[in-house]
Amino acid sequence: MAGIFQKTLRLRTALRHLGPHSTFSSTTTARLSPVDLRSLFLPTTSWQFGLCCQKLHTGADRSSPSPSAAPDRLPFSRITQEDLAVFRKILPDRVITDPDLLESSNVDWLKTVKGSSELLLRPQTTEEVSQILKYCNSRNLAVNPQGGNTGLVGGSVPVYDEIVLSTALMNNILTFDSISGILTCQAGCVLENLSLYLEERDYIMPLDLGAKGSCHIGGNVATNAGGLRLLRYGSLHGTVLGLEVVLADGRVLDCLATLRKDNTGYDLKQLFIGSEGTLGVITAVSILCPRKPKSVNVVFLGCETFEQLLKTFQLCRGMLGEILSAYEFLDSECMRLLNTHLKLPNPISDCPFYVVIETSGSDPTHDGEKLHNFLEEAMTSSLVTDGTVATEDSKIKALWSMRERVTEALTHDGFTYKYDISLPVERIYQLVTDMREHLGDRAKSVVGYGHVGDGNLHLNITSPAKDPALLAAIEPFVYEWTASCQGSISAEHGLGLKKRNYIYYSKPSQAVALMGDIKDMLDPKGILNPYKTLPDNLK
Amino acid sequence: MAGIFQKTLRLRTALRHLGPHSTFSSTTTARLSPVDLRSLFLPTTSWQFGLCCQKLHTGADRSSPSPSAAPDRLPFSRITQEDLAVFRKILPDRVITDPDLLESSNVDWLKTVKGSSELLLRPQTTEEVSQILKYCNSRNLAVNPQGGNTGLVGGSVPVYDEIVLSTALMNNILTFDSISGILTCQAGCVLENLSLYLEERDYIMPLDLGAKGSCHIGGNVATNAGGLRLLRYGSLHGTVLGLEVVLADGRVLDCLATLRKDNTGYDLKQLFIGSEGTLGVITAVSILCPRKPKSVNVVFLGCETFEQLLKTFQLCRGMLGEILSAYEFLDSECMRLLNTHLKLPNPISDCPFYVVIETSGSDPTHDGEKLHNFLEEAMTSSLVTDGTVATEDSKIKALWSMRERVTEALTHDGFTYKYDISLPVERIYQLVTDMREHLGDRAKSVVGYGHVGDGNLHLNITSPAKDPALLAAIEPFVYEWTASCQGSISAEHGLGLKKRNYIYYSKPSQAVALMGDIKDMLDPKGILNPYKTLPDNLK
Repeated sequence: MAGIFQKTLRLRTALRHLGPHSTFSSTTTARLSPVDLRSLFLPTTSWQFGLCCQKLHTGADRSSPSPSAAPDRLPFSRITQEDLAVFRKILPDRVITDPDLLESSNVDWLKTVKGSSELLLRPQTTEEVSQILKYCNSRNLAVNPQGGNTGLVGGSVPVYDEIVLSTALMNNILTFDSISGILTCQAGCVLENLSLYLEERDYIMPLDLGAKGSCHIGGNVATNAGGLRLLRYGSLHGTVLGLEVVLADGRVLDCLATLRKDNTGYDLKQLFIGSEGTLGVITAVSILCPRKPKSVNVVFLGCETFEQLLKTFQLCRGMLGEILSAYEFLDSECMRLLNTHLKLPNPISDCPFYVVIETSGSDPTHDGEKLHNFLEEAMTSSLVTDGTVATEDSKIKALWSMRERVTEALTHDGFTYKYDISLPVERIYQLVTDMREHLGDRAKSVVGYGHVGDGNLHLNITSPAKDPALLAAIEPFVYEWTASCQGSISAEHGLGLKKRNYIYYSKPSQAVALMGDIKDMLDPKGILNPYKTLPDNLK
Repeated sequence: MAGIFQKTLRLRTALRHLGPHSTFSSTTTARLSPVDLRSLFLPTTSWQFGLCCQKLHTGADRSSPSPSAAPDRLPFSRITQEDLAVFRKILPDRVITDPDLLESSNVDWLKTVKGSSELLLRPQTTEEVSQILKYCNSRNLAVNPQGGNTGLVGGSVPVYDEIVLSTALMNNILTFDSISGILTCQAGCVLENLSLYLEERDYIMPLDLGAKGSCHIGGNVATNAGGLRLLRYGSLHGTVLGLEVVLADGRVLDCLATLRKDNTGYDLKQLFIGSEGTLGVITAVSILCPRKPKSVNVVFLGCETFEQLLKTFQLCRGMLGEILSAYEFLDSECMRLLNTHLKLPNPISDCPFYVVIETSGSDPTHDGEKLHNFLEEAMTSSLVTDGTVATEDSKIKALWSMRERVTEALTHDGFTYKYDISLPVERIYQLVTDMREHLGDRAKSVVGYGHVGDGNLHLNITSPAKDPALLAAIEPFVYEWTASCQGSISAEHGLGLKKRNYIYYSKPSQAVALMGDIKDMLDPKGILNPYKTLPDNLK
């Protein structure tokens, strides 16, 4: 009792300091930046990447190829000098063929998928994208649209020699309406830059994710990125109001409306949200942005069981109500990796489960009171074992980094098998427990973290090196387990190259067949991001 | 000054009574029910409807047909005795051919579009819908899917002799998860019934509209209904998590996921949201429901100018923040119609503009304080001239009815030309002013009301009787005006029969052509809801 009281006291003391100036800037430098991590790897040439890629794709280190391995190269044309001349005419000085400069476009952030593209195109305008695609389509040249290249399923890099079409130079903000909060910008704007721009104008982006320092808004939309604010502001299917898209044959589809409501015909833009660049290249986005909250608080709590963590979620939904903006969790294995690899100390006492709760609201006093009442109830009812509250910006960032830097800590633990699973919320941790039992000592670490509020588990399994036997133990076990709960085998990461053949675990064959019909309709030659999203055995 | 002070005092006094028990039930009986209104019209037989329909469709009372008039009947098959025998085998006792019973299915709520269907089918299961469509597709029989038949653009009734496929008997709630708030139900559930079911379980539907007593959730989704809660909970593209849809050829597309996040392939369900039954028949819906707020307050305010009304909106977005759940307006002409035709007294002093603001939150004390501070600021800065606050359920309903019963009042004012326009919010009332000036004394009333928070104006123009000359003065003026501001000519009502040919005012031809491709892909014979949504000159 005395211990609990002491911890309650710690929370209460922290709460007393909840002041009106505890605002939160999301421009945290503590967050994981994919670009930083890249520098940790030794440089290799694109030819080495190509070689490595061959091995990965053919599954040369295994008796039979994994379903995620790339299929044979499709019979697209190969780039000729004439093609290069055409591209140089469309994009003076922005046609890249130098292998060193192509290197970072050929490999994904996790360094598990490596293509061998010999051409990187960097358009600045929609018209240029249109001319490029029109030409590629006529010549049957395959194209890999690329944003910030921060995807985790091999969707954003070429598989063979596809032309990389980068949106990096399409980074202009087009309009911002400070009355409606509607932002219109080119697809290559970096998410963090948009956040900074909006925060100066008292708004925020409706999405936030660890890769914000590198990822492009066009890529976010193309992959239907979820992230940390989905619980509060919903998915991009709701917040994206308009898109401009260039179709495979170069036609420009202008659905760049800046209206909150528009029921004139089919909502075509929805097709492209989450289609991973396989149906068209998004060139501009209009998006509804929420007001910047006047008060942000972050709490880090410990729970003895996952059941208590879920009960705490229910309690906090009721008591924090409309100011709840995130409810994230990590397990003690994640904490061990943060301690070991990143030297991040646990801000509270050791517990089996940890929760990061964020509130954002319009009145610091009201928010503080709601949070206080919730924490008092959570402690009194013994749902929560220990906790700490952050009111200052630096402490808020430090607490958030316990959740956001788990991905980074995992990269230091060994080769990581990553799963991004959507399940009924009461089942999400059972998968981690079952997987641990199933794998026994074959895995180095089996960790679970993710977005409790969205029923989204990030299950990660590490081993000292790539281990086909371990992979065979994980898959299809993880997918069958997920399918048995009517879950999704990709909650927010998408299918890309790696997960495309597992689609049937989450979608019926009728639906997958219809996706194939849509692909055929919009990209009959299949030049846009081939080998991605749709399964190999579609037809 | 004394006057303003007195009014401020009235607000303050009202505010003092803001208590913890001022909860709001949305099951108001004061709201407009389309069924009630139907009884106001004299009964006619379906043959008379057919005759009337002919006139409407051919524009017989005008020198040239209106673009909204129906095109010639397409060469679908006509129903035979053999067809009826097949349907009777699929649906024992649920095949309706009695003209009296067909009457209400053949005419829309506004009584401006009348079909001559001779067959109403009332399936109970998805399998029955599948069998019906498979047969109709093979026989080339046209089908009009029908929910609660509360649409305002002639989308929900047959135009000629299409078979009416009603979802009225598909009214079972399938599952409700009280942890996640995800509801799954058949398409024919009446919105109000779902609301009642959820409120007993401490949740609410994410949408609410005047027709809730009759409209079906399947129809809401098929038309992407907006309504009164969109400002707070967003559109159905964000809140609908899954759909089950029967395609034109009878294939069942099972995308009835109950997951908040799922990025496995293209989000097919989005195609059917807002497609007005032209791409498939929605048979079941899963939808994310918000928690029932613990405190609801409604304020009715008066403003001297529309500019002040917009400034009040900005102020209230800042000060009410996350508890703002509706910001609706009506002009003094609406108030005159409410007074005259429905004998509803103005609850405050006469003003050129009126606003209904609703807050809903989790803490009555905090909500009351926020509202108090906002009102004090709005009065002090003279943005608001007068106002009243409702804390009790009956007064909340009475204030809401001032906004919700405008549609009903209009039906008593004469023949009504209805426009549902989306515009940048600062422009929405200019259209009303310009239209008034443009029409002069040719119109009986020109009124504006709607959803300020969503930039959605309902512009309504009445005349003593149907008046082709007046219509010619209104259209295309209203559409050209809207297009000049990049607005939408249908914010939430859809295109249906009446607005289909105006689609080019809001969508470029490339987009409309692609909609046609999608229709061809999913319904190659065009049997589903013909003459709706897509323009006649598509191909």
